[in-house]
Amino acid sequence: MNASPVQARRVVLAARPDGRPRLPDFRLEEVPLRAPGDGELMLRTRYLSLDPYMRGRMDDRKSYSPPTPLGDAMEGEVIADVMQSNHPDYHPGDLVLARAGWVTHALSDGTRLTKLDSRFTPVTTALGVLGMPGFTAYAGLLNIGRPQPGETVVVAAASGPVGSLVGQIARIKGARAVGIAGGSEKCAFVRDGLGFDAAIDHRAPDFVDRLAAACPDGIDVYFENVGGAIWQAVLPRLNTHARVPVCGLIAQYNGPGAGGPDFLATTMREILSRRLTLTGFINYDFAKQRPAFLDEVSGWIADGRVRYREEIVTGLENAPEAFIGLLEGRNFGKLLIDLAAEPVSSLHGPGPNDVS
Amino acid sequence: MNASPVQARRVVLAARPDGRPRLPDFRLEEVPLRAPGDGELMLRTRYLSLDPYMRGRMDDRKSYSPPTPLGDAMEGEVIADVMQSNHPDYHPGDLVLARAGWVTHALSDGTRLTKLDSRFTPVTTALGVLGMPGFTAYAGLLNIGRPQPGETVVVAAASGPVGSLVGQIARIKGARAVGIAGGSEKCAFVRDGLGFDAAIDHRAPDFVDRLAAACPDGIDVYFENVGGAIWQAVLPRLNTHARVPVCGLIAQYNGPGAGGPDFLATTMREILSRRLTLTGFINYDFAKQRPAFLDEVSGWIADGRVRYREEIVTGLENAPEAFIGLLEGRNFGKLLIDLAAEPVSSLHGPGPNDVS
Repeated sequence: MNASPVQARRVVLAARPDGRPRLPDFRLEEVPLRAPGDGELMLRTRYLSLDPYMRGRMDDRKSYSPPTPLGDAMEGEVIADVMQSNHPDYHPGDLVLARAGWVTHALSDGTRLTKLDSRFTPVTTALGVLGMPGFTAYAGLLNIGRPQPGETVVVAAASGPVGSLVGQIARIKGARAVGIAGGSEKCAFVRDGLGFDAAIDHRAPDFVDRLAAACPDGIDVYFENVGGAIWQAVLPRLNTHARVPVCGLIAQYNGPGAGGPDFLATTMREILSRRLTLTGFINYDFAKQRPAFLDEVSGWIADGRVRYREEIVTGLENAPEAFIGLLEGRNFGKLLIDLAAEPVSSLHGPGPNDVS
Repeated sequence: MNASPVQARRVVLAARPDGRPRLPDFRLEEVPLRAPGDGELMLRTRYLSLDPYMRGRMDDRKSYSPPTPLGDAMEGEVIADVMQSNHPDYHPGDLVLARAGWVTHALSDGTRLTKLDSRFTPVTTALGVLGMPGFTAYAGLLNIGRPQPGETVVVAAASGPVGSLVGQIARIKGARAVGIAGGSEKCAFVRDGLGFDAAIDHRAPDFVDRLAAACPDGIDVYFENVGGAIWQAVLPRLNTHARVPVCGLIAQYNGPGAGGPDFLATTMREILSRRLTLTGFINYDFAKQRPAFLDEVSGWIADGRVRYREEIVTGLENAPEAFIGLLEGRNFGKLLIDLAAEPVSSLHGPGPNDVS
């Protein structure tokens, strides 16, 4: 029940980006955090997850979640230690998943926390292949994409945490997996490291032709997490009755292009003439399937049928730059911020080994 | 086995339209038709159906059906009498549904014909409420739209053969039906004649506000058969998990607009954030449901729960102008060409009463 205040560090939304976020849109702050009250606990962040959806929260625009208020901490999921606890269900040293945001420390009343057990080894998988990105891939592909043996599944950002699992599950289900990624290093990983049937570099000048060559029987499932030019390239290759789970649109998160021809008419015409189904989804629409996902995918990892890659950046102060890079595809694998090196000297009050 | 040749009249595709079709894109021809051979029969058209999909066949562009070759008769479904028959299953006087095209007479080998029984009373229902347009409404609404009691269903071209049935079935299923139509006369018919809960004139300057007011709980199903500006007005009102059967896009059949902002990004963002499902379909994707459709909808007509409206234009020579008007929304109800008044004097050989 020791309960001394600490100085927490956090990254807040300083300004709403006009298009691509820039460093001045973020601000690193130090704020005192009061001691946990009755029934509360204090978390110390170990890892912060950086994900494309966070870009949407920076805009003042209606979406499936409300925007982050200016001056508030950026939202995000973290893996945290319980540092102090006045809550009967949590004890110092417990490892939990929490929506604490871009912060070093946070108070919690114990709701919306998930204790992490030994299935999450290493623990960072709870933010990646066995976390929200992995479940997004699993739920969207199996419920909406529904790949059949022999069909062709295409996914972009294929070296990332969602795309990499989409392709690997497609192959487990007997489909061909074609990945799109940026640059030869990522493509080599997608093909040789993850076992996709083909990987196409969207930066190649003959990208459209290469995509066509990699999909000689057309495309039956396109898992959409990019939008923009890649959608334009995929659309003409979609087969009759193709399914398009719409999971993300990272290419347009920084705002629409500067006009140009109206691609909507083309897309609608193809939806009609090839009887396509486009379905947007958010992973929590399928929350009931999460236990099955954890069992199944952790089994595939144990069997060596599913592999994943992480890119870990050290220090909360580097999160804004890492996030800006994520939106430009500069990360290679699931992007995490490691906060273990946060200077203990900035903490006032007991360190993690001092809690009672 | 009397088998004299006749002079048939037909409307052929003279030129591919550049945008909106014009009268010179069509040509009325008179051609001799040989007598039916062994196993063949000769049809005499009674009614020709004019439908928006025909515009797509005029373009030299890949779609779900190949384009009509230049110089060939325009495609279309007709109700015809069997005039002469060397086929064991058909006898003079039989009434059939056939894909004969914009022609007064045609030969058939007996395949792809449907005999019309007394359920089709009047017989023109076989081209409208109990034909392809009606089945399109039924299959798309019930399989893809899936309206639930209390939900709001919106359909445009609501006084036409597809839209009018969409709204009436929506109400039978316990949903609210909101129709969009062009002009006060059509809107009055949709509301008072067909029993929709509301009808909105898309020509009204405050159309967008009126649509919002008519859908206070948002839109759960939008049956898309128009596209263009109406889609832009509907999109912001769609509820989470709304379903959009994409049946037609008459507003863009005459070609895309002259550029402008890229509406695709907006549409994709809404698909994602509100988890919409857009599914294109063609009525024959659901061909197995056609018997159930006929039973059910003919029952609803008999009960007075479904009403319909036809606009009948006389004379094959007037079909091109009527069709151009259809694409501009000038028809009011299911548009048919009545060929009964075709001048018998233009027929060489026996008239319909002369066949043996």
